[in-house]
Amino acid sequence: MTHEVVDILISPEGRLEVLSKAEVTKLLDTSKGGLYDIFRKCALAVLNSGSSIDDGKELLERYRSFDISILQRERGIKLDIRGAPAIAFVDGKMIRGIHEHLFSVLRDIVYVHFEVTDNPRFDLNRPDGITDAVFHILRNANVLQPQRSPNLVVCWGGHSISRIEYNYTKEVGYALGLRELDICTGCGPGAMKGPMKGAAIGHSKQRMSGGRYLGISEPGIIAAESPNPIVNDLVIMPDIEKRLEAFVRTGHGIIVFPGGAGTAEEILYILGILLHPENAETPFPLIFTGPSTSRAYFDQIDQFIGLTLGPAAQRRYKIIIDDPAQVAREMSAGIAEVRSFRKAHSDAYYFNWRLKIDPEFQKPFRPTHENMRNLKLHRNQDGHVLAANLRRAFSGIVAGNVKEEGIRAIEQFGKYEIQGESAIMGPMDALLASFVEQSRMKLPGKAYTPCYTIVQ
Amino acid sequence: MTHEVVDILISPEGRLEVLSKAEVTKLLDTSKGGLYDIFRKCALAVLNSGSSIDDGKELLERYRSFDISILQRERGIKLDIRGAPAIAFVDGKMIRGIHEHLFSVLRDIVYVHFEVTDNPRFDLNRPDGITDAVFHILRNANVLQPQRSPNLVVCWGGHSISRIEYNYTKEVGYALGLRELDICTGCGPGAMKGPMKGAAIGHSKQRMSGGRYLGISEPGIIAAESPNPIVNDLVIMPDIEKRLEAFVRTGHGIIVFPGGAGTAEEILYILGILLHPENAETPFPLIFTGPSTSRAYFDQIDQFIGLTLGPAAQRRYKIIIDDPAQVAREMSAGIAEVRSFRKAHSDAYYFNWRLKIDPEFQKPFRPTHENMRNLKLHRNQDGHVLAANLRRAFSGIVAGNVKEEGIRAIEQFGKYEIQGESAIMGPMDALLASFVEQSRMKLPGKAYTPCYTIVQ
Amino acid sequence: MTHEVVDILISPEGRLEVLSKAEVTKLLDTSKGGLYDIFRKCALAVLNSGSSIDDGKELLERYRSFDISILQRERGIKLDIRGAPAIAFVDGKMIRGIHEHLFSVLRDIVYVHFEVTDNPRFDLNRPDGITDAVFHILRNANVLQPQRSPNLVVCWGGHSISRIEYNYTKEVGYALGLRELDICTGCGPGAMKGPMKGAAIGHSKQRMSGGRYLGISEPGIIAAESPNPIVNDLVIMPDIEKRLEAFVRTGHGIIVFPGGAGTAEEILYILGILLHPENAETPFPLIFTGPSTSRAYFDQIDQFIGLTLGPAAQRRYKIIIDDPAQVAREMSAGIAEVRSFRKAHSDAYYFNWRLKIDPEFQKPFRPTHENMRNLKLHRNQDGHVLAANLRRAFSGIVAGNVKEEGIRAIEQFGKYEIQGESAIMGPMDALLASFVEQSRMKLPGKAYTPCYTIVQ
Amino acid sequence: MTHEVVDILISPEGRLEVLSKAEVTKLLDTSKGGLYDIFRKCALAVLNSGSSIDDGKELLERYRSFDISILQRERGIKLDIRGAPAIAFVDGKMIRGIHEHLFSVLRDIVYVHFEVTDNPRFDLNRPDGITDAVFHILRNANVLQPQRSPNLVVCWGGHSISRIEYNYTKEVGYALGLRELDICTGCGPGAMKGPMKGAAIGHSKQRMSGGRYLGISEPGIIAAESPNPIVNDLVIMPDIEKRLEAFVRTGHGIIVFPGGAGTAEEILYILGILLHPENAETPFPLIFTGPSTSRAYFDQIDQFIGLTLGPAAQRRYKIIIDDPAQVAREMSAGIAEVRSFRKAHSDAYYFNWRLKIDPEFQKPFRPTHENMRNLKLHRNQDGHVLAANLRRAFSGIVAGNVKEEGIRAIEQFGKYEIQGESAIMGPMDALLASFVEQSRMKLPGKAYTPCYTIVQ
Repeated sequence: MTHEVVDILISPEGRLEVLSKAEVTKLLDTSKGGLYDIFRKCALAVLNSGSSIDDGKELLERYRSFDISILQRERGIKLDIRGAPAIAFVDGKMIRGIHEHLFSVLRDIVYVHFEVTDNPRFDLNRPDGITDAVFHILRNANVLQPQRSPNLVVCWGGHSISRIEYNYTKEVGYALGLRELDICTGCGPGAMKGPMKGAAIGHSKQRMSGGRYLGISEPGIIAAESPNPIVNDLVIMPDIEKRLEAFVRTGHGIIVFPGGAGTAEEILYILGILLHPENAETPFPLIFTGPSTSRAYFDQIDQFIGLTLGPAAQRRYKIIIDDPAQVAREMSAGIAEVRSFRKAHSDAYYFNWRLKIDPEFQKPFRPTHENMRNLKLHRNQDGHVLAANLRRAFSGIVAGNVKEEGIRAIEQFGKYEIQGESAIMGPMDALLASFVEQSRMKLPGKAYTPCYTIVQ
Repeated sequence: MTHEVVDILISPEGRLEVLSKAEVTKLLDTSKGGLYDIFRKCALAVLNSGSSIDDGKELLERYRSFDISILQRERGIKLDIRGAPAIAFVDGKMIRGIHEHLFSVLRDIVYVHFEVTDNPRFDLNRPDGITDAVFHILRNANVLQPQRSPNLVVCWGGHSISRIEYNYTKEVGYALGLRELDICTGCGPGAMKGPMKGAAIGHSKQRMSGGRYLGISEPGIIAAESPNPIVNDLVIMPDIEKRLEAFVRTGHGIIVFPGGAGTAEEILYILGILLHPENAETPFPLIFTGPSTSRAYFDQIDQFIGLTLGPAAQRRYKIIIDDPAQVAREMSAGIAEVRSFRKAHSDAYYFNWRLKIDPEFQKPFRPTHENMRNLKLHRNQDGHVLAANLRRAFSGIVAGNVKEEGIRAIEQFGKYEIQGESAIMGPMDALLASFVEQSRMKLPGKAYTPCYTIVQ
Repeated sequence: MTHEVVDILISPEGRLEVLSKAEVTKLLDTSKGGLYDIFRKCALAVLNSGSSIDDGKELLERYRSFDISILQRERGIKLDIRGAPAIAFVDGKMIRGIHEHLFSVLRDIVYVHFEVTDNPRFDLNRPDGITDAVFHILRNANVLQPQRSPNLVVCWGGHSISRIEYNYTKEVGYALGLRELDICTGCGPGAMKGPMKGAAIGHSKQRMSGGRYLGISEPGIIAAESPNPIVNDLVIMPDIEKRLEAFVRTGHGIIVFPGGAGTAEEILYILGILLHPENAETPFPLIFTGPSTSRAYFDQIDQFIGLTLGPAAQRRYKIIIDDPAQVAREMSAGIAEVRSFRKAHSDAYYFNWRLKIDPEFQKPFRPTHENMRNLKLHRNQDGHVLAANLRRAFSGIVAGNVKEEGIRAIEQFGKYEIQGESAIMGPMDALLASFVEQSRMKLPGKAYTPCYTIVQ
Repeated sequence: MTHEVVDILISPEGRLEVLSKAEVTKLLDTSKGGLYDIFRKCALAVLNSGSSIDDGKELLERYRSFDISILQRERGIKLDIRGAPAIAFVDGKMIRGIHEHLFSVLRDIVYVHFEVTDNPRFDLNRPDGITDAVFHILRNANVLQPQRSPNLVVCWGGHSISRIEYNYTKEVGYALGLRELDICTGCGPGAMKGPMKGAAIGHSKQRMSGGRYLGISEPGIIAAESPNPIVNDLVIMPDIEKRLEAFVRTGHGIIVFPGGAGTAEEILYILGILLHPENAETPFPLIFTGPSTSRAYFDQIDQFIGLTLGPAAQRRYKIIIDDPAQVAREMSAGIAEVRSFRKAHSDAYYFNWRLKIDPEFQKPFRPTHENMRNLKLHRNQDGHVLAANLRRAFSGIVAGNVKEEGIRAIEQFGKYEIQGESAIMGPMDALLASFVEQSRMKLPGKAYTPCYTIVQ
């Protein structure tokens, strides 16, 4: 099967990038490898938006001849693109949203590499150094906008969901949009796209021209979760942990739709943070919601949380079934509390400095077979530490499912082995099995082969 | 059954209205009747947007206590609204799109009454006087924008269509939006809403911030076809004939989706005009389209046209089944021709002065029982005159179906009797029967009782 | 002496005009005379901006071959201009401000002719009909903007003033601009240009991007007082009385700088109105100001008012010498009172409906020799009626000095004879003599020959 | 003599600053000294705009109690200002242009300190490292705008010039503004303010709403040359050499008005660069201009250049006396050449990477008494090296005249001694003497005591 491709030369438009000579040189220095390689992968992912691939490795193999280079021109730089997926074009012209995304990718990769990684002011071994880096990457991407009142709702949920669930995410997005709330997601398909589409219609009915559709991705996941072009603010964080930190520090509340391993990872991340004693007083609206057909799904999630993290964790979220307007009203009310709290403490609206994030949630976790095998999954530890370890387990499964690096590792070394206390492993096995059964692990079309074994 | 209502005081916002003392006084002079009454009815229709009523009479009866008045305030006027349908509000705040529509209604009613009706410069008995009035109403509504390149696609089709058809209209709208084409419709639900929703997503992906969603209505139909709030340019023409003229003089091409009597009226109107010898050379892209399930529908329409207006009429449109991208490409290409033609003739892009419209299509037709009975429906006349008479027949049926005045007439005097040459009445009867069978006459929910009898 | 001219074809840009076929036809119908002739004269005046001519007749004679016609083009109309003064161009391109003014002229002339003059809804024989016409012309020119808080300061004063006085008007404008007040003038040179230039710098320092520089002219005076291109809202009222009414109904306060007969006319107009008993309670800040060298000038004006209209009139203004910041502070405070008053009475901010203007001030006065001779200039009448008659006397002198029609009348019939009670004619003679002596009647360069004789 | 002061709390408005916790902490750490001290000095200079001080030391002594601190608030930071000069306020409200400048100062000081000084990627000992730093500071200040066509005219000249010269700079600015050219200056009074005022009026007549008035300063000079609030893009470079580099890399042409030692420094800087063999082919329009009263001044400058740098240098500029339109036309034509050249070489329009700047012009020169004494001022060296040394001599004199550090050094150690070959020292002495005689060294009001002795 061949895939249609297009060659094109594009200039920045609207949001422009001005690069220095040194920046262009290093980006083009393909022998140097890393930087150009990351840029190429992310650019390809962005161009592949809308196609039904959720496999980073397959994408790269399908468009082997894809190449992107930077030319310096009198009005700034141009991108010379060869072998781009035809899906990014309408009658030969690149869709402008995708065009913008390419330059966002460039901006973030240049910034992270030149201003963060090698800059001694960011001590990435210290918690505050990591947070500072997250802050600066977001600031550079113009995401931190002090004039806005808190209104950013993070929507999490699966990329592979049923039509009924997808329509429900649109309705929730519409209800949020009518209330002039903005949307932030991980910027792929499914539950990451529906709320934005709904909100776009809601914003348009409210004549809210500056509506924000913020997508936060990272180089490992972007190939599996191509940003849809409605996203009008795209940020590429350097890794999954900084991406998660970006969600919780910029968002003012979170809605969780049904999903698979990635959604479980996200739920464990936020609950692990909210369980930290220093966050006990911090308001943070968190709502799990889905259509009535998803009631059983959330019952199961709720049970799993009850069994592992206990009632303290269960108190931090509400489950609302089949009521988009109520979800939006609750979220509005919750965000109003966030606003009062920040005002009372003179905290910034645009960045939640106060939220305590344990280093366990910040340290990048590499899902090697060894690391996966050694995860400490027992209840004989603090709730938020257990949450951190559970988070890592699900994170590894996501990698094995859809990330290039993870897929290659599984091909080479076989399935991950995950082991731990049976009181945890039992429910975890059941949960994962249900994700598989409900086709939440991968986009439909192929049979799913688990990348893990639960060793009880 | 009671219907929730809201009282509110609103000011113009964004687009403001500045009224003179005399204008306010006359609008409020309820004893005077006509003007205030029209304003009240149209305002109620606008506020009812989104509800599933397509019966002008029912709407007025449901919100009997609805009242709207104008207050002069230091920063301009305010509207004092009592008993408004709750559906226009989100958590007590009026949806801003609806808010804007109220002031558009006010603007047009004031303009038509004060500047057109009683102004001797408009001789409404002469064809060019009528066209001049249409031009001035549109200009006053800021619809004629000379800086835009031709890109306005009029979408016609039924307000009551199947889910599959509705989704198809969204897909066509999306394909048009991706090609940066704007949408104009009659501004109700169904085929009038779908293309706008689709185009809104397409425009958003193309970062086209000034996308236009033009709705053209008239006081008789607006109650049955409440403008959806995506419409960001709403114009209320004084009657159905001027509304149709507005469509064909501002639009650069027309797409027809499946529909009922109203859609048939529109098809006959545009074909009648295009059949006029003086329009023989004028390019005017006209596409009939629907999903594959609608193939039979368009076959039947095509046959009816063939039998009544003949092959000359059939040559003016294309039928494209189940291919949104192709529809959009054909429309783009057709509009490019319109542009070249106008450029070559130094014709305005924003108003098609050159199009010859026979007075038969301009004269307001009142669907009284007598007028309906006396329609000349035989082939022994010029094609465009037959088209004009057929148009009137369908127009009357629309009135009997959904317009307040028509419904009351049917209640009082019984069904309209339509008669004519059997070679025409046969196919017409079949066509109408199929509309009924396919639930195209009225929104689903009640059994449809025809308002007409075909007397063969 | 030849004067350089330019031929050019221009399109509207920014603010566009969309004309109907009928409008274009009538404007071009040169045989019809009146309309085209007025358009041509006003257009020529606009194009002559910046040159030192204040003689309407000389201007027309200098550019005899000047011609302007309208072409219908695909993107709207174009103006085909022949023999335009070179001063309107920079390196062959028309200055954009002047370009805009041409289309403002077109807009107002079309509107007045097509929508006002022949429209039965405006009864121009009745006071409220005239006010309604003034309102509609301003509304059509988009001058009435309800969202603005009151901040429009009308600046009156001579077109021929000394350098010291001119610099002073700039300083006052600067002080007003720093306080975010907008400027309205008669839009010629001298005291009509200085405040706008000063305010432009003040607004720029305050980053006030929407600063308004409103110029109100009329076909008779515009040739002598070409709008300077800083004016970003130009309105051409049909005659001098409607122009004066436009000033006092849209402005929120008035500053009077030194000037000649025209300034005296304006002072008498506003005082005559403020003396009307129905306006006794209406706040209206009125400040006479100039540099210290102008102290004697204002003493003389003050005396003349005292002698003719008495202390009641003197109470309605303040004289502030050589203190721009104080002028601006007083004006700000006065406008704050206007705002409170209108708010308390729910009066519009953008149009002073409440101000009572006696028909004596509204009826157009034609300065024929007979009318001038028959003016009733004695104290045996109500103050505001005397003011109206004095206003007419000065109005006639302005016509004889600078207006084409007036100049031709003086050439044909000799000087105007002005007569009346000596207690009035004495001071009037002295005042006029001082205007002559101070070169306030005409721009310097030629000896001034009075166009009047005082018959005592 | 006391000076009125104001206390105020201000938030960013329009252009906002978002600071991280670490940045706020370090800025407020007054014990750390340097950073806070520079911020305080620059802030005070900005607030003193419009007053007639050109003595950095006097300013600091006059407002000893001035204090500025940063508060973190929910919508971003606020500045808490105590003891600010009253001149920055109008009726108690800070002039918005000044308000903006304060936040520009903050932005640049934070950026230079946090992102440049301590960042290993900028090797400030290497020419390309310095250029890279200049580029990044300008990029961060949003000065590099790739969408603009080349149109930035740098205007140099004295802060202390005669009224005639000042008016002439306004006229040149007006002629530039009418041609839609933007202005860049060192942002003080005199020849740095006049062209901006003139251009503002020209831009306003051309309806050019995005006109740029770019001011480039540095911490040493800003106190003597307070940015006037018309400046709508203010950048604070870290030192005089980077400021000069910023001028020549962002500007597309340079106009030099009469001035004193600072202007001589600037002339020598640009000529030294243009004399570099690698720049021989690079177009760079350079015009010296003044009113007819300045003819002798430019003759003397021209002679001095002829005697020191020779005819090769003289060929790089034109002298135009008393003809603002001609200056503007020549500059337009010169910039058109710059544009073609850059286009032909695919060079950026917004930053002149190609211009070769010898390290002699980049290395910061500290004007200690010893450094001044040891300058090599003889013709036995390359022209551009001699130019570099002469530049340093004048730079030292500027410091001794108006910079806090220089003034203190002179107070402590006496006059600078400048020595060299008599063929150079003679003309230099004459030139400096004429600057003194013409009051070009300091603002008028005090007798000027030279800070240097020429040792021949």
